[in-house]
Amino acid sequence: MAATVVCSSGNVEVVCQSVRVTSAMKAPVCVLGTGLIGGSLLRAALAAGYDGWGYNRSAAGAQAARADGFDVTEDLPAALRRAAGTDALIVVGVPMPAVDHMLSAIASYAPECVLTDVVSVKAPVAAAVRDHGLADRYVGGHPMAGTSESGWAATDPELFRDAVWAVGVDEGTRAEPWTRVARLALDCGSVVVPVVAAEHDRAVARISHLPHVLAEALALAGATGGDLALGLAAGSFRDGTRVAGTAPDLVRAICEPNSAALLEVLDETLTVLGAARDSLRAETSLADLVEAGHDARRRYESARRWEITDTLPGDQDWLERLRAAGQRGGVLTRLS
Amino acid sequence: MAATVVCSSGNVEVVCQSVRVTSAMKAPVCVLGTGLIGGSLLRAALAAGYDGWGYNRSAAGAQAARADGFDVTEDLPAALRRAAGTDALIVVGVPMPAVDHMLSAIASYAPECVLTDVVSVKAPVAAAVRDHGLADRYVGGHPMAGTSESGWAATDPELFRDAVWAVGVDEGTRAEPWTRVARLALDCGSVVVPVVAAEHDRAVARISHLPHVLAEALALAGATGGDLALGLAAGSFRDGTRVAGTAPDLVRAICEPNSAALLEVLDETLTVLGAARDSLRAETSLADLVEAGHDARRRYESARRWEITDTLPGDQDWLERLRAAGQRGGVLTRLS
Repeated sequence: MAATVVCSSGNVEVVCQSVRVTSAMKAPVCVLGTGLIGGSLLRAALAAGYDGWGYNRSAAGAQAARADGFDVTEDLPAALRRAAGTDALIVVGVPMPAVDHMLSAIASYAPECVLTDVVSVKAPVAAAVRDHGLADRYVGGHPMAGTSESGWAATDPELFRDAVWAVGVDEGTRAEPWTRVARLALDCGSVVVPVVAAEHDRAVARISHLPHVLAEALALAGATGGDLALGLAAGSFRDGTRVAGTAPDLVRAICEPNSAALLEVLDETLTVLGAARDSLRAETSLADLVEAGHDARRRYESARRWEITDTLPGDQDWLERLRAAGQRGGVLTRLS
Repeated sequence: MAATVVCSSGNVEVVCQSVRVTSAMKAPVCVLGTGLIGGSLLRAALAAGYDGWGYNRSAAGAQAARADGFDVTEDLPAALRRAAGTDALIVVGVPMPAVDHMLSAIASYAPECVLTDVVSVKAPVAAAVRDHGLADRYVGGHPMAGTSESGWAATDPELFRDAVWAVGVDEGTRAEPWTRVARLALDCGSVVVPVVAAEHDRAVARISHLPHVLAEALALAGATGGDLALGLAAGSFRDGTRVAGTAPDLVRAICEPNSAALLEVLDETLTVLGAARDSLRAETSLADLVEAGHDARRRYESARRWEITDTLPGDQDWLERLRAAGQRGGVLTRLS
């Protein structure tokens, strides 16, 4: 896409040569939704030298961002027209239930912009993007970072430092937009895990959505024990229930759109826990569960990311090669 | 108990007046088992001005403690004879499976000493203490502190700072030993929660043992997702599986002796998770679980301990009054 910029200088009208804003030049970012993730991304991008602005639906959130000196508007068409006029990278930073509304607006005001998102589930976003005819310039993203907080007040430009950022390598993904999205992730301090949508969704059901479900159940079991149980609670309960502190609407918006993958691992876990219960009842033994769980935690602790150095976007079979590397724990830490 | 100390000075034998070593005088502590909890307790007690020594079964553990300047022996009879000779407070700091062996030795070498323990479950310890005829001078204890580490190398004299320390107020508990045990807990930096054994065990099933079981199951679910899932894992998985890093034998020694209470809450949790699964499948909704879990976590976060100031050990109905206060979240922070 070549943006034609018409400059007016006094009474002399000059039609400037269109300039392709490449990823190397850090084209601006337009972040839709400046909550914890989107807002932190805007701050991280600006700290990394990008120009950028945001849109936020809630006036209070937008005002809080402006009070901190950030260019965040409640006018979605204005934010998107500006994106279209500057070849900005648009980042959808709203929860899944609000994604469709954002995509409608993007299709209306900035259909030529490169588009990514930071939503916690990838296949449903990709499907919605296709429905809106925006698939050609879309690359899915998901920074694996967050806290139990939400909203602008919780934003942190360092939120993505040393995090992993999933970037989609689904069939049909084009190298130029992929590079822009991956570069933004790297510039925010993360490493990039290349992954296709369906595999991402199955993985995060295990390591993000199931943790939410179990944390809620554990919190409930503790509180059912009353003041005595909560008064005796220490580190294991505190850590195990931390994410139950996340706003319920946000937890539902994270988990429910991934219901198929979550159901699969939830069923699997109910089977594991049922077997542990049966063993505890029949033999007063938790041996199988505890040994398998400990091995698993050790595997997690000893997992080492390795750097993908033999494949760059646009290389022969790059999508398939990056996907295979990501499955084996590979990450990109640079793009040259 | 009045210890008669026979002093020998040259050829003049002097029988000294026996001296009652009161809790106010910080009688020494004899810690049996100098792993994470017992070893930290020995260090905390010494830091608080107590005299103290320990016994450890493993020569490596005892040597590590001695190398750090602590008086830890592998000779259990010697440690206990010394306790008997100095009216020391004996602290059983071994996991439940080793408790019976310790109690046998105490019954043989130091049956008159005041006795407490730091085992994670209370009714089975109390039953074993009764079996060995030691109930009269026993007061159960359980500091709610720990890490996923174990052994002397993990000990920390500050482990109990600002922790809660459950101290038993079961029927028949005597005020003088109770005061000595509670004072040790306070001197180690903790606050004291008075609780009877059965209620303690039901409470810790909810806030300590269930967290272990769920952490193991979560770790397993993550690792089943392979390198990709583990590579994408972030804070919720890390925190939710932390205690799965604990040595399997120790987790089993903590959880299995509390099987009745753990089975009750595990069944309850399987029901809760099964209902969430059904709701997710039928209605793509986790609303009930997420809202209840969030309310529970908020209740935990907002729970405030309050200080018990109207009851001291030995007061009229003190056991029943302390028990009732503990049930309502009350703690003792001082004993005068």
